[in-house]
Amino acid sequence: MEDPRANSPAGADLHLDLGGTRGRSDLVHALHESIRTGRLPAGTRLPSSRSLAKDLGIARNTVADAYGQLVAEGWLTARQGSGTVVADRILPVHRPTTPIPGAPHSANPAARAGAPHPTDPTARAFASSSGISLLEARKFRYDLTPGSPDVSTFPRSEWLAAARKALPAAPNDAFGYGDPRRRIELRENLADYLARARGVWADPDRILICSGYVQALNLLTDVLRLQGAQTMSVEEFGYNLHWDVIRSRGLQPTPVPVDEHGVRSDLLEGQAALLTPAHQMPLGVPLAPDRRTKAVEWARESGAILIEDDYDGEFRYDRQPVGALQALDPDRVVYTGTASKSLAPGLRLAWMVLPEHLMEPVLEVKRTTDLLTATLDQLILAEFIASGHYDRHVRRTRQHYRRRRDHLVELLAVRAPGVTVAGISAGLHVLVDVPGDAAELVARAKRQGLLIASLDRYAFTPDPAARQALIVGYGTPPDHSYNGALDLLCQILAV
Amino acid sequence: MEDPRANSPAGADLHLDLGGTRGRSDLVHALHESIRTGRLPAGTRLPSSRSLAKDLGIARNTVADAYGQLVAEGWLTARQGSGTVVADRILPVHRPTTPIPGAPHSANPAARAGAPHPTDPTARAFASSSGISLLEARKFRYDLTPGSPDVSTFPRSEWLAAARKALPAAPNDAFGYGDPRRRIELRENLADYLARARGVWADPDRILICSGYVQALNLLTDVLRLQGAQTMSVEEFGYNLHWDVIRSRGLQPTPVPVDEHGVRSDLLEGQAALLTPAHQMPLGVPLAPDRRTKAVEWARESGAILIEDDYDGEFRYDRQPVGALQALDPDRVVYTGTASKSLAPGLRLAWMVLPEHLMEPVLEVKRTTDLLTATLDQLILAEFIASGHYDRHVRRTRQHYRRRRDHLVELLAVRAPGVTVAGISAGLHVLVDVPGDAAELVARAKRQGLLIASLDRYAFTPDPAARQALIVGYGTPPDHSYNGALDLLCQILAV
Repeated sequence: MEDPRANSPAGADLHLDLGGTRGRSDLVHALHESIRTGRLPAGTRLPSSRSLAKDLGIARNTVADAYGQLVAEGWLTARQGSGTVVADRILPVHRPTTPIPGAPHSANPAARAGAPHPTDPTARAFASSSGISLLEARKFRYDLTPGSPDVSTFPRSEWLAAARKALPAAPNDAFGYGDPRRRIELRENLADYLARARGVWADPDRILICSGYVQALNLLTDVLRLQGAQTMSVEEFGYNLHWDVIRSRGLQPTPVPVDEHGVRSDLLEGQAALLTPAHQMPLGVPLAPDRRTKAVEWARESGAILIEDDYDGEFRYDRQPVGALQALDPDRVVYTGTASKSLAPGLRLAWMVLPEHLMEPVLEVKRTTDLLTATLDQLILAEFIASGHYDRHVRRTRQHYRRRRDHLVELLAVRAPGVTVAGISAGLHVLVDVPGDAAELVARAKRQGLLIASLDRYAFTPDPAARQALIVGYGTPPDHSYNGALDLLCQILAV
Repeated sequence: MEDPRANSPAGADLHLDLGGTRGRSDLVHALHESIRTGRLPAGTRLPSSRSLAKDLGIARNTVADAYGQLVAEGWLTARQGSGTVVADRILPVHRPTTPIPGAPHSANPAARAGAPHPTDPTARAFASSSGISLLEARKFRYDLTPGSPDVSTFPRSEWLAAARKALPAAPNDAFGYGDPRRRIELRENLADYLARARGVWADPDRILICSGYVQALNLLTDVLRLQGAQTMSVEEFGYNLHWDVIRSRGLQPTPVPVDEHGVRSDLLEGQAALLTPAHQMPLGVPLAPDRRTKAVEWARESGAILIEDDYDGEFRYDRQPVGALQALDPDRVVYTGTASKSLAPGLRLAWMVLPEHLMEPVLEVKRTTDLLTATLDQLILAEFIASGHYDRHVRRTRQHYRRRRDHLVELLAVRAPGVTVAGISAGLHVLVDVPGDAAELVARAKRQGLLIASLDRYAFTPDPAARQALIVGYGTPPDHSYNGALDLLCQILAV
């Protein structure tokens, strides 16, 4: 049988691959495909339902129904007298490739591999989130930029085991809407864990589970603006993404100097402050005791809110862990924690411990932002904590990162005596002060296939002439590429 | 040994339950607890590190370290001459109950059961999201409000089976940050599914996975406002939550009349329109063919964007499914779908098929909203679709809901001949026109333990004198309470 051409006679044969079954939906689908792929150009006259039914050996009503639906959807037009015709469709400028059901999908191989393809808008969108473009990152053999744990350490089998316990045991309402603060199972286990491991004044009723730390910051900033805030103090070194979040909610971030004792809390201003007290990102210093007290006093006296970003509180090596600032005044300090460093960024699970007066306003904003945070991973994480897997995983990875850090520090001492390493006692990155021009070293590293960032990149007010240092994220690479990355780093710093 | 009292002599014994090990962190934790629980009131002098070390049989440095940390955290103060003393702490107005690690958590039983407790702010926050307060819902024996599937149908074991396949097979980067459009595995399978089942012009590169439909609407509205939009046409019947989302982004929703042919697309205005073409929520009518064409023509001529909310596209019973409006012009229509009705609201998974020109702006907004959507459930859903479990689950639940609907319609015909049932051919709810005062019936139903909503509740401009009807969400209750709910409904409508 031949395919019909435009203006073919009404009785023309119509070849349709109906596959196995020949129901209405199969016919509709076959027609969809033929029209989409251009096999049936606009203006093509279709055979009458009677003759097509006869050809295909199916009921006439089935064909009539199918035609009816396609007319309803605008694919066909039924003109009085002239029968059923493929409709004229103003085609979109860019005609999307349409997947052929069953057959492997025709997406570009790059996208298939998870990499953006040339015209991929996501590269730019993602760029400033980590300071590094996804597209850029994929060009390099080695990646020592900070901000990500070694994702190859995610405990897949323990996680599945927790899922096998948690999902069957969950009440039906766990799969529904429910409490906007989200699952009580997780809030209770987190309250225990945070009090025990981080010295947080935690109460399950004060905990809100949200979709990652960025959302926590977004919601808090939105609420503060609604309550009249205009500026938020931020540490002069940190993530552009976080400052962009603050700006996106209409607040002005104001940089406050950071020295070897942490942020200058005597210089805080505005109606709120975003701090990393346990481990300044990226300088790596803890906030000194008197500065902690000063920050809380400032908040009390000015009525401001402190947001404590405890992004990697779990990872302490040589020194005693510094507990949460929030414990000094749970009514002035919002504690925020995340599973992104301790487990995986892909989980997008974070938690806030809120002052009572902020819970309702934050829930109101959350409601129109994404209503609720997904529950299944919450049930699994609750089980993961309760069963002790979480503590074991943190201990295990802490040793993993400690070994990496030791290896890095020893290697630099031997092979790059000209540099000074700082901020080594905690976290997943160190600060490496270099004698030369940091930007020049970064460029050279990139030329040789190593992606690395200079301190300047994390400065609120970039100043190429300022402190010359690199941020080395030793947590980021998988094991198989860590040694190669260090070797290349040493070569570059040795010069 | 006795507990110390305030102003006890410096050498006083200090009882601390150190459990098994006796490291610094155990000591710190024991002291935290003793101070938090009030066992060690402010002003209490602690024994010298030497004597406590001796009592506990641990190294003096361990005690000194622990004291040092607690001073750093503000729990203790070290006064020259007068030794180490429990600090005066300005206590928060409401002192949160602090969990005793190990011991079962001291949350109130209500919260434990997932129900809000008296002072629970979440009740109000949640109230307007579904139109029904969580607190309110829990007071009733039966719930026939629309908007939720029967969550007891969630295929837990099939989901776990998919997880056992998907998680071990996933590449490491699935647990990291990655493509902001999210997992290609899911975008490819969705593209196939949406083209096949919903007639969508789907291309994995044009799909963005987001955190539930509310977020999809939030992001789209935000982008439209940034592009200069001021008003968005909405159907005069729908969800308050959606209108609140639009307002929260600074756009003005404008109601457009809806009749038996769907929304009056000849009356659309503004720079965008939010539509439910396949199944108007809550009236249940599909958008008539000429109105579909008209809506798209309006968008093309005015340069407006149509947002297609295909919230329950899977559930069609007697009539042929109406395909996606998006297929008429993928550059003017944003298709949005969700797993909330087909699988579970708790998954918070939704997807947008975007015109090419909107992908980058939406990603920019998504970046500062919650950066990325969680990946694990995406990997599992991708496997769930690829293995055919998704189609099977949809077919199974479609039959489940069809039986419920038939039962409802038959029962009403016999026991409440005075009412008229409409919008029965699709979805998870029907419209029941009543002779009397709908609000009065709702009140009576509530008094008897049945939560049900009147059409008025879904009106943009509530008018108690307008069409008297109830929305009966027959998808909502679990099987064990469905018959009881129907029986009560019939009693009320029979009167």
